Amino acid sequence: MSQPNIKSTIFDNIRIVLCQTSHPGNIGSTARAMKTMGFKNLYLVQPDKYPNAQATAMAAGADDVLDNAIVTQTLSEALVGCAFSIGLSARKRYLSHETVNAREAALQANKIVASQPVAFVFGTEMSGLTNAELDCCQMLAMIPANPEYSSLNLAMAVQLVCYELRMTILNGALEPTSNQTNGDAPTGEPLATNDELERFYTHLEETLLHIGYLNPNAPKKLFERMRRLYSRARLEKEEVNLLRGVLTLTQAPRKHTKY
Amino acid sequence: MSQPNIKSTIFDNIRIVLCQTSHPGNIGSTARAMKTMGFKNLYLVQPDKYPNAQATAMAAGADDVLDNAIVTQTLSEALVGCAFSIGLSARKRYLSHETVNAREAALQANKIVASQPVAFVFGTEMSGLTNAELDCCQMLAMIPANPEYSSLNLAMAVQLVCYELRMTILNGALEPTSNQTNGDAPTGEPLATNDELERFYTHLEETLLHIGYLNPNAPKKLFERMRRLYSRARLEKEEVNLLRGVLTLTQAPRKHTKY
Repeated sequence: MSQPNIKSTIFDNIRIVLCQTSHPGNIGSTARAMKTMGFKNLYLVQPDKYPNAQATAMAAGADDVLDNAIVTQTLSEALVGCAFSIGLSARKRYLSHETVNAREAALQANKIVASQPVAFVFGTEMSGLTNAELDCCQMLAMIPANPEYSSLNLAMAVQLVCYELRMTILNGALEPTSNQTNGDAPTGEPLATNDELERFYTHLEETLLHIGYLNPNAPKKLFERMRRLYSRARLEKEEVNLLRGVLTLTQAPRKHTKY
Repeated sequence: MSQPNIKSTIFDNIRIVLCQTSHPGNIGSTARAMKTMGFKNLYLVQPDKYPNAQATAMAAGADDVLDNAIVTQTLSEALVGCAFSIGLSARKRYLSHETVNAREAALQANKIVASQPVAFVFGTEMSGLTNAELDCCQMLAMIPANPEYSSLNLAMAVQLVCYELRMTILNGALEPTSNQTNGDAPTGEPLATNDELERFYTHLEETLLHIGYLNPNAPKKLFERMRRLYSRARLEKEEVNLLRGVLTLTQAPRKHTKY
């Protein structure tokens, strides 16, 4: 679960805390969800049944996360050393807690985790966090959901939060690198250069005139649409070669007309 | 599952397509994940076991989504009417598919769903989408994950994608309001639907065989590159008509060979 060095501390400074979880399967799924996003610190406050075979089964290849989970009797114990704790809630609470969406919560956490641990705290499957548990948190986070059916599975909620954290920490990169950049991942295939494209367009125009598709007296408008279409595709060098192969054959005398 | 009127069409224009799912429980969890984010159109391509009690159990209160799921024999059938299809992949493919992260995919989809359906396509639990299935998609989306353990559960992946869609459509709002605005304005030009594209590809393949570009004994590999190139361009309806006009003329006996 190593990340590039510069980032590993950050990932290790995230703590996922589950309070009084009823279904051990959810603990296993949580371990898996965490590990897929690169996190490993799981705290279980008074879990109903743990350790448990169902938890292990649901963890799939994330049994290391499960094996290293720390069980505590109180939420306060689970939060020792944390600089900031964010409670997850499926419903609005009429308290004075600052409430943000999960993305904003991840952004806030990311400002802290470079130097200090941050906890995300999840309540029971049935009723979420108690008010006493919420009082241990400095911020409340909600996952935007369908108001008519907002019952996300517990491990799903953990997955979404861990995903938002990973997106924030690594700037949305598909794979972590030492010099993260935003934007599109390069496919690795070299794109055609501008002059190669121009030669292709010339070849295309000739061919379309040759087969009688373009009107030689007013070829422009239709041809411009064609250019636009191909330019949108951001053609690779090799693709330009393929297309020009087609054009060459289109112009060549056809075998079946030879005889 | 109603959304404010202005947005309900948008939510209804999202289609989640699961290909050859092995575990019926994942189908149920997918239905639940979709409904929590406000989506309801589920397509199942050759599911292993469906309908199935385990699917129903995992759907919890989302059995309406499950009951209305449409089962098809091929991916093409499931994509009929879609203007854009995005395939989910856990691993890099060394093909020329445009590959973006799930957030970017949701942004791209959001430009289209106001007027036309968009599909997100998920492969089997074990091996993901086949290359043939990927060829039905115009874009590839990856969920950034731990490179050492990237095995997200299928329903978790659906949850993340639906979450990103909801975040994009409703601008991250915790609750939908009636005056949400989209980020990008639609371009206005209707895109070709999946079935229109398939007819174009058939026409293209015929033509390339006709002019001797494709080897009739091994037409596949070269043609797949062609498909990918055009699918990247996200062809408009009218552009498909233009291109098919070219193909028709390419196959027609040419005037200069008549004499």
